[in-house]
Amino acid sequence: MKAEIICVGTELLLGQIVDTNAAYLAQVLAQQGIDLYYKSTVGDNRQRLVALLQQAWKRADLIFVSGGLGPTLDDLTREALALLVHEELEEDPGARRAVEEYFRRRNRTMSQNNLRQATRPKSAICLPNPYGTAPGLWLEKDGRVVVALPGVPLEMKNLVEREVLPRLRRKSGADSSVLCSRVLKVVGMGESAVEEQIMDLMTGQENPTIAPLAKRGEVRLRLTAKARSEKEARELIKPVEEKIRARLKGYVFGADRKLLEEAVGKRLAAGGFTLGVAESCTGGLISHRITGVPGSSTYFQMGIVAYSNRCKQKLLGVDKELLRKYGAVSPQTARAMAEGMREHCGVDVALSTTGIAGPGGGTPKKPVGLVYLALAHAGGTIVRRENFSWDRENNKTAAAQAGLVLLWEFLGGISPGENSENH
Amino acid sequence: MKAEIICVGTELLLGQIVDTNAAYLAQVLAQQGIDLYYKSTVGDNRQRLVALLQQAWKRADLIFVSGGLGPTLDDLTREALALLVHEELEEDPGARRAVEEYFRRRNRTMSQNNLRQATRPKSAICLPNPYGTAPGLWLEKDGRVVVALPGVPLEMKNLVEREVLPRLRRKSGADSSVLCSRVLKVVGMGESAVEEQIMDLMTGQENPTIAPLAKRGEVRLRLTAKARSEKEARELIKPVEEKIRARLKGYVFGADRKLLEEAVGKRLAAGGFTLGVAESCTGGLISHRITGVPGSSTYFQMGIVAYSNRCKQKLLGVDKELLRKYGAVSPQTARAMAEGMREHCGVDVALSTTGIAGPGGGTPKKPVGLVYLALAHAGGTIVRRENFSWDRENNKTAAAQAGLVLLWEFLGGISPGENSENH
Repeated sequence: MKAEIICVGTELLLGQIVDTNAAYLAQVLAQQGIDLYYKSTVGDNRQRLVALLQQAWKRADLIFVSGGLGPTLDDLTREALALLVHEELEEDPGARRAVEEYFRRRNRTMSQNNLRQATRPKSAICLPNPYGTAPGLWLEKDGRVVVALPGVPLEMKNLVEREVLPRLRRKSGADSSVLCSRVLKVVGMGESAVEEQIMDLMTGQENPTIAPLAKRGEVRLRLTAKARSEKEARELIKPVEEKIRARLKGYVFGADRKLLEEAVGKRLAAGGFTLGVAESCTGGLISHRITGVPGSSTYFQMGIVAYSNRCKQKLLGVDKELLRKYGAVSPQTARAMAEGMREHCGVDVALSTTGIAGPGGGTPKKPVGLVYLALAHAGGTIVRRENFSWDRENNKTAAAQAGLVLLWEFLGGISPGENSENH
Repeated sequence: MKAEIICVGTELLLGQIVDTNAAYLAQVLAQQGIDLYYKSTVGDNRQRLVALLQQAWKRADLIFVSGGLGPTLDDLTREALALLVHEELEEDPGARRAVEEYFRRRNRTMSQNNLRQATRPKSAICLPNPYGTAPGLWLEKDGRVVVALPGVPLEMKNLVEREVLPRLRRKSGADSSVLCSRVLKVVGMGESAVEEQIMDLMTGQENPTIAPLAKRGEVRLRLTAKARSEKEARELIKPVEEKIRARLKGYVFGADRKLLEEAVGKRLAAGGFTLGVAESCTGGLISHRITGVPGSSTYFQMGIVAYSNRCKQKLLGVDKELLRKYGAVSPQTARAMAEGMREHCGVDVALSTTGIAGPGGGTPKKPVGLVYLALAHAGGTIVRRENFSWDRENNKTAAAQAGLVLLWEFLGGISPGENSENH
């Protein structure tokens, strides 16, 4: 079964709303194992909507239309469907009663145009919509199914779950398949380096497929399997996941919704370590991410956002002379901040950041995006240098991510890596 | 000029990410008065991408393609463009240098497949992308323009603003009408209270329209005007904005992209105040937001994330006895944290938060979502209580927003408000 999604609404083409309905419908199709090849959006224009429906009619068996079922003149989906299948619109008695009842229950006056919502092409059936006045439509003809859904997300989702999915499952019968995905998350290796390690796995098989996606400071590998049941799909994914984990060693920190700060927290808790964070350029973001994890208070003791030099001296005991000699953004200061945090505040592991987030403050020798990170532990201190080249927000984000990566690698016993420096 | 948008990525068809790029590009086109008739999404599939491009080539003059410019084998946009215009891909020397330089600056090894990103169809030019390795492409042929942009939102937006818009403006000349929006941002008043104040303005006119939108702890009013030029549209908006500001007095903190932390920072800088933040339940988020503003180091001195009681005592001088008697989540502790921060760290204004972010730690008397905030200044201390009822993440977000609102109101001389308590 091949599907298409058509979203209708001029507001979507003006960019005034983000189309979350399409993403939801796409997920539903994926879970049912139905291939989706195209998603299209069109405005409230009769001619273009009909043209798009005719095109979809040629290349798909199942067409979802979202939006355009309202009561006003620019709601054209019903009309366009009638034109598509060369039928007249007729009133549905049940739908009419539902619309009238909707207004009666709310003590509101129904206007005549609300009755437009009770019409449907002759061969369509109305799908009752308890949350609004627009029923959905289910139209089967010439081996194709067209499902029209209201654009209001709550109404749309309710109709999909209560009315559309059961019908779809009945139609597709026992031969239907499901699609399952699992996302492996990798830090400490770039996208191309990851790809090189697993190239043969990526090209050598089709079920599951492996698709890489780089997010700043993190590489994600999406494994998608198609099978007759979710269980079977998970079983296809499992051995491939194991191979990938073996190839990428300790660099896979989790899967699906797992966050790096959770993975780090788990290692801290398992080792019985307490943590303190001394942040300059990341301005509190590392503490914020770490404290976003429920239960983080068992290992996270404190954070200091040491923005001023005075604070670096007073709260972290960084030597004034050292700051004068090397500057606040230097490997020496990063080291002193981490070691000061560890000693003064009595934590087992201390992480520090100092850098130039931008847009101001850069020099040729110390450009915007230069960041030093340090991690002080019982066995010594690791110092790492990074060079980012984004705006303030993204430099902070990237530096915070680099701090968590450093913690993750240290706690997992991975060596500091090529761009680390030991001063 | 007629435009189409094509988004490329199997992850979009699986519904795994919501397509915010398409909405952004649609907005940009609307602002330029360029008609957008279709938006389509296709997976990482050569044949279908080329088919979609060919269709768009027939019905539009301007085609935006988002995504598919990465270094891996499933990034097909460059190839598809070459097939569309019947040209070979060739290496662009400038783009090659940029990719090599990107890796050199980061001390990372470039893999061979990164050089794929330096190729383009013969008649295309590369648009330099300072934030990533994939340059954009601008291709003009047979009266049509195709613009290919990377899928990473930051990179895409930067390219649109710096490279694409100036070129488009040069091409399209002066004949079209534009839509302009301005968003006024309000804190310290709920959505219905705001609506009551300006109801007559909302219903009494159509150009500009006024649409309210409530975001957690903030109300936004979108004013949208249509006119022959941006200047004319801005002139329609201006008097209405002035009326709204007059009605809502000091509660409008800014417009458009202005963030509350910027507005607060401006007031701190104007008053010559230094700021310190002592956070417990917000875990560093307030410091993170404040330090997100360029130049914040002139007023932001330091933040302390005092997660443990030991830290509250040691770094903020909170009395052990007080903690035992009233508990960490109490108006007394909030007050002591703010006053301790102000005295021990020598700042003019100190803000503190203490509360129960959840999911654990709640009791009938102190439920999850209970937050105390305090602001200590030369004239005394304000303590405020809030009750949120969300999950950990949203409770943190809401508490941080409440902290900034408290600062904003204090610095603007607005009285602390009804839910404040003076202990």
